[in-house]
Amino acid sequence: MKLYSMPSSGNSYKVRLLLGLLGREDVERIDVEYGSATLERAHADGRLPFGKTPVLELDDGILLPESNAILSYLGQGSPFVPTDPVVHAQMLSWMFWEQNQHEGVIAVRAALLNYPHRKAQATPERLAELLVSGTGLLQIMDDHLSARDWLVGNAPSLADLCLYAYTHTAESRGGFDLTPFAGLRGWIARVAALPGYVGL
Amino acid sequence: MKLYSMPSSGNSYKVRLLLGLLGREDVERIDVEYGSATLERAHADGRLPFGKTPVLELDDGILLPESNAILSYLGQGSPFVPTDPVVHAQMLSWMFWEQNQHEGVIAVRAALLNYPHRKAQATPERLAELLVSGTGLLQIMDDHLSARDWLVGNAPSLADLCLYAYTHTAESRGGFDLTPFAGLRGWIARVAALPGYVGL
Ligand SMILES: N[C@@H](CCC(=O)N[C@@H](CS)C(=O)NCC(=O)O)C(=O)O
Ligand SMILES: N[C@@H](CCC(=O)N[C@@H](CS)C(=O)NCC(=O)O)C(=O)O
Repeated sequence: MKLYSMPSSGNSYKVRLLLGLLGREDVERIDVEYGSATLERAHADGRLPFGKTPVLELDDGILLPESNAILSYLGQGSPFVPTDPVVHAQMLSWMFWEQNQHEGVIAVRAALLNYPHRKAQATPERLAELLVSGTGLLQIMDDHLSARDWLVGNAPSLADLCLYAYTHTAESRGGFDLTPFAGLRGWIARVAALPGYVGL
Repeated sequence: MKLYSMPSSGNSYKVRLLLGLLGREDVERIDVEYGSATLERAHADGRLPFGKTPVLELDDGILLPESNAILSYLGQGSPFVPTDPVVHAQMLSWMFWEQNQHEGVIAVRAALLNYPHRKAQATPERLAELLVSGTGLLQIMDDHLSARDWLVGNAPSLADLCLYAYTHTAESRGGFDLTPFAGLRGWIARVAALPGYVGL
């Protein structure tokens, strides 16, 4: 298997984090950073079905896009995928919410602030709007995590890994203030303490 | 079980469509349209964990938000959920793509054109941008469906139901031209011909 992975991207990092936690070293990693010739080649060679990274290429050539689908595929049968149907569905709720709400705000604000090719879109109005909506999303997570250690069930799941990716850099890259969110900060520390953890 | 469902919304319609196809009539439906007192009450009573519909309320009171997570929960063990792990992962790729890319463009253009409370955001520039990016997304689906009947595997799955919701109204509500997309049009007709099909 090969993973087309963008080093600077939280979506790619999710997958690298799961591979670290699972102790898997059998997945070849192809780094495709913005502006690199390898990214252009991956596009030109049709390796990115939806035009985005990460993509997992299976040994028979099947290309699997979407970070959270890759997490589900690689995580099958591991402790990070709850077997109880309700807890499993709750895990998916957080993962779809991440893609529909969280990523488009928390990750986008970080991208506008950090990627040179996005700077033109980083107007003060847009940044201010994203700060307000993103703080509301972090509040939803904090409310939930103030009462429990992990997003679903009693153990870390794919939902935690998926949401950790852009939440743990919300402050350093996205300019969000996590000081008021003690529940969130405790959870970030718990994820970072998992055996096999790898940083971004 | 109860389903908090917004009659005008494609995200809620996905779930109603699956219930129709499964012939399930045991789920009580609570209609929560924009501007209605029932929607306000659902918000006020904390029935919408992420502030959005649809939400499935289980018999023990657990609240499951996110349309695609609800599809996964209700679809378990049915023919709409592939048992092969690779096909299952491919189904999830399309479902995450729908939430991350398709919904934020195809559904949003339709919302800007049709919901009175969104009209102020419907600037000509925004509509023009969404027309271009949405046509690119429909092209990805059409390319894929020109060579096959269903998005993944050899049978309709949750991926088809999920993407059908906003794609089949892309023309009537979103103002996209589906004339060039023969693969997509054939697929829309195949979904509408499934036994138990219910319209929006
Ligand atoms: N929904 C996708 C989003 C992936 C995505 O947006 N990837 C960006 C980097 S964060 C990308 O690959 N851009 C490459 C390009 O546009 O050329 C996922 O979760 O995998
Ligand atoms: N990612 C969510 C999105 C749901 C969503 O955006 N729902 C809108 C209608 S399409 C809503 O309930 N809005 C109600 C409100 O904002 O009060 C899903 O797929 O369920």
